[in-house]
Amino acid sequence: MAVYTEVTDEDLEAFIADFSVGELLSFKGIAEGVENTNYILHTTTGPFILTLYEKRVARGDLPFFLGLMQHLADNDIPCPLPVANGRGELLGELAGRAAALVTFLEGFWARRPRAEHCAQVGQALARLHLAGQDFNLKRDNALGPDGWQALYSRFDERADEIAPDLAQTISRELSELARLWPGDLPEGVIHADLFPDNVFFIGDKLSGLIDFYFACNDFLAYDLAICINAWCFEKDAELNLTKSRALIRGYESVRPLERNEREAMPLLARGAALRFLLTRAYDWLHTPAGAIVKPHDPLAYLRRLRFHRSIPSIASYTGEDT
Amino acid sequence: MAVYTEVTDEDLEAFIADFSVGELLSFKGIAEGVENTNYILHTTTGPFILTLYEKRVARGDLPFFLGLMQHLADNDIPCPLPVANGRGELLGELAGRAAALVTFLEGFWARRPRAEHCAQVGQALARLHLAGQDFNLKRDNALGPDGWQALYSRFDERADEIAPDLAQTISRELSELARLWPGDLPEGVIHADLFPDNVFFIGDKLSGLIDFYFACNDFLAYDLAICINAWCFEKDAELNLTKSRALIRGYESVRPLERNEREAMPLLARGAALRFLLTRAYDWLHTPAGAIVKPHDPLAYLRRLRFHRSIPSIASYTGEDT
Repeated sequence: MAVYTEVTDEDLEAFIADFSVGELLSFKGIAEGVENTNYILHTTTGPFILTLYEKRVARGDLPFFLGLMQHLADNDIPCPLPVANGRGELLGELAGRAAALVTFLEGFWARRPRAEHCAQVGQALARLHLAGQDFNLKRDNALGPDGWQALYSRFDERADEIAPDLAQTISRELSELARLWPGDLPEGVIHADLFPDNVFFIGDKLSGLIDFYFACNDFLAYDLAICINAWCFEKDAELNLTKSRALIRGYESVRPLERNEREAMPLLARGAALRFLLTRAYDWLHTPAGAIVKPHDPLAYLRRLRFHRSIPSIASYTGEDT
Repeated sequence: MAVYTEVTDEDLEAFIADFSVGELLSFKGIAEGVENTNYILHTTTGPFILTLYEKRVARGDLPFFLGLMQHLADNDIPCPLPVANGRGELLGELAGRAAALVTFLEGFWARRPRAEHCAQVGQALARLHLAGQDFNLKRDNALGPDGWQALYSRFDERADEIAPDLAQTISRELSELARLWPGDLPEGVIHADLFPDNVFFIGDKLSGLIDFYFACNDFLAYDLAICINAWCFEKDAELNLTKSRALIRGYESVRPLERNEREAMPLLARGAALRFLLTRAYDWLHTPAGAIVKPHDPLAYLRRLRFHRSIPSIASYTGEDT
């Protein structure tokens, strides 16, 4: 939520001159993006977002992220389209940072999403999965099951500072999920972070998906499981069945789940809850007091995890017989 | 440089519905404004700036600031135009804050201003002074000579933490300026903070003036003296005569200075330097280490103050015989 890198008008005008986007009219740093610095630009041809990639984003991953956005936009997924400069490159350099210019997507995220929103998110996610099938770059999921143990070992000795017996709960989950995790589900490009603040609406109609900087290759159904966690729980961490039903029905209206995906859904949702529990717990323990970006509460995901452990099948999310 | 107050999509849509500005398309918090929270909005009728007034701005002053912007915009001064809601009000309430919607001004400030910029700033300042003559509200200059002693007394015992003998220098200036300050110069509405970051250009052409939240009634020539300090010194605090000449000539091409204004200019410039020395020194001593907003160096204004003390007449800024 900050501008980490300041750009000067002269540097930006020189950078922009490489792109066929007209004359620069204005630019303002925006308070969005925890990882990167973002500016909103107006030029004589329209609005754009300029992103400066800060050090937490691996530069080697940028061609995957930008290429994916280009591929998805070309396939009618409403997402920011990276603009190529005169040399055909999507990535430039500005103020000592790798920098990209993307089209500005109108819309704003739903602070209190309703079932109508969830239905559209499900549809958009399934369309993204289908469109991603013929994208030719690959990226491992660094925050997938293979990475959870390593992430946990970075703070395991302090886990109980967050909640009593949290260390024991996480250890048990890690070993159970390692044993039970499926090996044969349909794979492809997933967004992997499709939380409400990454989905824009205009007047209740989905207008765009943003922030592809966790996108990777993994089980498609795992992406839906992330969305169940991200969209369908109320503040007290109770599942809102109306929302999860709308989400899954929306998804299946575009891409019906296969039998093994449906069977694995509670387990995938458990894994997704653990993934966000781990990163939030890490951030919780490593954010200095008084920091600009307040860490999210990790325990909301412990409660979700317990819910997913407690249910017998996907029917608990859909309210239907399986 | 921060978003102090978050607004929700629902609250903002309800707020916007009161104004005839079309449908909300997007809104993003921008990293500008030390005192207030600002959002850039796109609606179906164009871009706007939404300002939420934080507690440092006295609510009683807002009608003056907003009314002035409206008056100036009506008189062809390029500044943000406050939009009235359906009840004709310029001021509303949003997220527990007084809030105003103003038109978005394209342009961006010159990080390295040149003499061409200074000439246009001089012209624009004089036009602002002329346009302000028939504005019917008044506001005292809280940071004018009558307020300096009170401001200084808030940190006088710690002044020498900033530089050796700073306390003695400030005390002497306060008493000398109180004795020498003129009483009979042309008065009117002044901007009082027309620093480079408050003046927008597009392709070297001045496109707008912003941030009227220090505007008040005072000597018009004092406003020009502030601009000499803000625009015409190089990093080592040496006067750039080419810039100060361009600034003053630009001003006088619209509103020629009177004889007593010319005679008072070195003294007014000394006062302006002291005013920014005082507020910067206060901020320097009261900003916590590691704060988002880094305080400006007060000593740059001590060096300017010494320069203004050392010169005999306005000719030192213009290079001309007086």
